[in-house]
Amino acid sequence: MVLLSAGPGDLDLLTLKAVKALAAADVLLLDELVDPLIATLAPSARVVRVGKRAGCRSTPQSFICRLTRRYALQGLNVVRVKGGDALMFGRAGEEIAFLRAAGIGVRIINGVSAAFAAAAALGISLTHREHCHGVTFVTAHTHDHGEPDWGALARTGTTLAIYMGMSRLASLAAGLLPHLPAATPVAIVQGASRAGEHCRLTTLRALRDASSQTTTDAPGVILVGAAIADARVCERGAELGTTMWAVGG
Amino acid sequence: MVLLSAGPGDLDLLTLKAVKALAAADVLLLDELVDPLIATLAPSARVVRVGKRAGCRSTPQSFICRLTRRYALQGLNVVRVKGGDALMFGRAGEEIAFLRAAGIGVRIINGVSAAFAAAAALGISLTHREHCHGVTFVTAHTHDHGEPDWGALARTGTTLAIYMGMSRLASLAAGLLPHLPAATPVAIVQGASRAGEHCRLTTLRALRDASSQTTTDAPGVILVGAAIADARVCERGAELGTTMWAVGG
Repeated sequence: MVLLSAGPGDLDLLTLKAVKALAAADVLLLDELVDPLIATLAPSARVVRVGKRAGCRSTPQSFICRLTRRYALQGLNVVRVKGGDALMFGRAGEEIAFLRAAGIGVRIINGVSAAFAAAAALGISLTHREHCHGVTFVTAHTHDHGEPDWGALARTGTTLAIYMGMSRLASLAAGLLPHLPAATPVAIVQGASRAGEHCRLTTLRALRDASSQTTTDAPGVILVGAAIADARVCERGAELGTTMWAVGG
Repeated sequence: MVLLSAGPGDLDLLTLKAVKALAAADVLLLDELVDPLIATLAPSARVVRVGKRAGCRSTPQSFICRLTRRYALQGLNVVRVKGGDALMFGRAGEEIAFLRAAGIGVRIINGVSAAFAAAAALGISLTHREHCHGVTFVTAHTHDHGEPDWGALARTGTTLAIYMGMSRLASLAAGLLPHLPAATPVAIVQGASRAGEHCRLTTLRALRDASSQTTTDAPGVILVGAAIADARVCERGAELGTTMWAVGG
């Protein structure tokens, strides 16, 4: 079977390898956040949606694993499609382990994770060497319903790319404020690379103070750190998924 | 102009958007680590190699910036090609700022960074939720020739993906050992997704002890953390850039 990364949304950000795998698919198992239009690239495939929304486990993980195994053992060309890069924040590890234990080979096809598309939308490097030492990708809440160690994350001197945090902007801003300057720039990018892409620039202090109004369940990426100071609010180019800055912007 | 991400090596990991931009290019400015075969996708383009190898600045950054500006102001369709994703560890920030100041619009096309391809080669998630809280991408040395704060990085509880560290395996293992268990798994992946892909699994302790023999300048990614324990030494599939594990492997 194939574990396929669908990228951030714009189907033009699929890799050539992904497009070839989709064309050969008998069955697509699609995550919630993947654009259903991806099925147009898999004309022979039966499409099964197996999404889980944050806090609403519409399809249990164990069911997805068993379904993948059943199709694969029938000899079908199963393509499991996850948003972004399948190897970051998608429980791919659990699915790979389950399928390996069943003797099923897993082929992995990489893709573009949402934070990279968010940085492209803002026109910034995630790791500008004058501002930071790298970039850290974390989720806003941990497996055991706690929070990340915001102090340790701040001390790394890396840009923070926070996933699955749109519904808890208040607590993550409050968690970071004791460890970073209140004026630290923050960008919130929803729907990066998609037609409805939306960017907002703010600061940690403003995010904490305004967070009750800005809570939303729409998926997005929150970027925090000095490197975000270079971000520009962008105009969309004529081509979908393309960002072009105004001259001198 | 276009700032284009060439991905980890395998040209099949280019995005559709990148392929379209290459087909329309008048000039390609290629980084050292980008496979020159990418030029076959840009049949109309003049190809200029402007690579910098670690420690050997064959083309100064300021020259690359001025060259890009000159071609862009001539009205040519300039495509600046960087390995991996252009927005991580490639001085894209400096190039974008320079071009913006010259009134040149920059269109960014994302790609797959090497650590994702390394994880695919190993068959692991970078962020298995039972093992870690995320993943941190850092370079082994900082802008001012220092080292990252290994203690802070270890305390984040994230997988570490270390770039540009192949020539200093000793110092990075020694830097991490006071902060992580000596048996912490480490994977070193060189040429991820390329024909010469090579994976090695070790531990922090073994890496420190053997590092004098293993120092190399060949580019690679070093992954450190409990999530690496799930890695498998892999067989290459028939298809270039594809990894398939033996049944039960």
